[in-house]
Amino acid sequence: MSVHFRKLALIGIGLIGSSIALAAKRQGLVEVISIATRRQETLDEARELGLGDIYTLDPAEAVRGADLVILCAPVGAYADLARAIGPALEPGAILSDVGSVKRHVHEVVGPLVPEGVHFIPGHPMAGTEHSGPSAGFAELFTGRWCMLTPEPDVDRAAVDRLVAFWKGLGSNVELMDAAHHDLVVAITSHVPHLIAYNIVGTADDLGNVTKSEVIKFSAGGFRDFTRIAASDPVMWRDVFLTNRDAVMEMLGRFLEDLSVLQRAVRVGDGPALEALFTRTRAIRRSIIDAGQDSSAPDFGRPHEAPPAVDTGFVREHGGGDDA
Amino acid sequence: MSVHFRKLALIGIGLIGSSIALAAKRQGLVEVISIATRRQETLDEARELGLGDIYTLDPAEAVRGADLVILCAPVGAYADLARAIGPALEPGAILSDVGSVKRHVHEVVGPLVPEGVHFIPGHPMAGTEHSGPSAGFAELFTGRWCMLTPEPDVDRAAVDRLVAFWKGLGSNVELMDAAHHDLVVAITSHVPHLIAYNIVGTADDLGNVTKSEVIKFSAGGFRDFTRIAASDPVMWRDVFLTNRDAVMEMLGRFLEDLSVLQRAVRVGDGPALEALFTRTRAIRRSIIDAGQDSSAPDFGRPHEAPPAVDTGFVREHGGGDDA
Repeated sequence: MSVHFRKLALIGIGLIGSSIALAAKRQGLVEVISIATRRQETLDEARELGLGDIYTLDPAEAVRGADLVILCAPVGAYADLARAIGPALEPGAILSDVGSVKRHVHEVVGPLVPEGVHFIPGHPMAGTEHSGPSAGFAELFTGRWCMLTPEPDVDRAAVDRLVAFWKGLGSNVELMDAAHHDLVVAITSHVPHLIAYNIVGTADDLGNVTKSEVIKFSAGGFRDFTRIAASDPVMWRDVFLTNRDAVMEMLGRFLEDLSVLQRAVRVGDGPALEALFTRTRAIRRSIIDAGQDSSAPDFGRPHEAPPAVDTGFVREHGGGDDA
Repeated sequence: MSVHFRKLALIGIGLIGSSIALAAKRQGLVEVISIATRRQETLDEARELGLGDIYTLDPAEAVRGADLVILCAPVGAYADLARAIGPALEPGAILSDVGSVKRHVHEVVGPLVPEGVHFIPGHPMAGTEHSGPSAGFAELFTGRWCMLTPEPDVDRAAVDRLVAFWKGLGSNVELMDAAHHDLVVAITSHVPHLIAYNIVGTADDLGNVTKSEVIKFSAGGFRDFTRIAASDPVMWRDVFLTNRDAVMEMLGRFLEDLSVLQRAVRVGDGPALEALFTRTRAIRRSIIDAGQDSSAPDFGRPHEAPPAVDTGFVREHGGGDDA
């Protein structure tokens, strides 16, 4: 089994695409990287950053001769892209993607994949709130999980090669069914984003608390949600347009539980509140133990020392006298 | 106006109390710190950490001769504490606290404050998910906001002294009405905690997605919520027991907005989703511009380089040959 690819074609070069390019080059997993984008500015930016070897606005040209093609564009663009690249794909090539939903990708792209091309959709659970070609970094996938959702009849050797590629990028890899993937990410990613976007929207739109107060006093917890709610709007629009059923199911459960919690607050049920708040602490510890988050307090956010106290006071009190 | 205090009494020495102790000493704001705790183990831990000068299990003893007394215990303990320390408070002393709710504190503690003691409740919007005396650090308050909620008739010089003390700790200070404070923190802190606790509880309790999957794939957004949901259970129980009205109001607005968003997902209203997701991005920028969060991607979480690729592959392909 080979982890080395002759030509990697990245269709789209945002945060994920550029991170793949940087990591694949650094790790020696590919010889040549071709990059296709929709917009000239993005392509120019990728070229200036030196992310690849071939730059083009024509996705068909990018995939010609490639043995690994990864769609890194918003999921909403996949159908057009698949139609554009289909005829240019090499027999034996692997076609994959990094989209956050997988059933939809199978449905939309699957029928457009030519005979002899190995279609293995994928989803690396990694990212930051930044987007665009300059947001990428080679360490993004280290220790994170990438899910691959090939149909059962896909060539096993091709799957093994793609698994080895992602492991080469530093990722852990798990194979799963596309429908199950969509449920897993609905609770671990999509509903968290939905409620983060929602509370930030709510806070932006209050009459009795000003926006300036929300911003000043955001360190009480709110600011954590704003990071997620700063994620790429188009990518996330497409997520919710294409994973509706799973999101609705998980959102329904979240709302059921929230009704119970709301009632506990209303009736002042201290033991119920404390029991939930204790149970949730254990999950945080499991995530840290599993290497999926930092144990540093406050995510390791930097803290500056307080500035020296106004010298007026120090002089007044002679540096320690009784006031 | 003096920022120097003769004796600071901290009643309770968790994350906030210990951070005040460390910062006040480092900044030269106090001469002597006395620490009172409910439990002997906590007191021993504080002594081993060298957080103060006087250690006692008797809060009345701790406050004797103190010109600044700060309650740093869970809000649910305030009434008993106020009764215990009331007779021992010095005339002219300032009595403050760091509790996350303020109307309740005025109602419960206010009537128990002796004549001649300046009662100025406070709330520093700062913290981490860690708790206990060892969780504190002197930089916790730097650049964060502390809200003080004195009644209008409180001695202005005393308020000025407490403002100067918090500024000396590195904090920004804002004076506001207790009822308004409770609304502000309901949206910037309490409801965010409630929904974080709730979604972590939901994810802990699914039939069709395992706990192990939730943990492995938590980097998709979920793990951010687990940090908040790892906060001190007793402190947060008391928050929801004592700020019910404001929490219910803000939760109601959150739920109204969520219904609209849920409908947009259900009917596939792409423009509405994209509009919200674009609007929320601006708030993140404002928070960073206001110095209330780091601009580093992913809160500045550490990222490791991917491990060297399995040498088996490298040997097999001679370091770059066509596969």
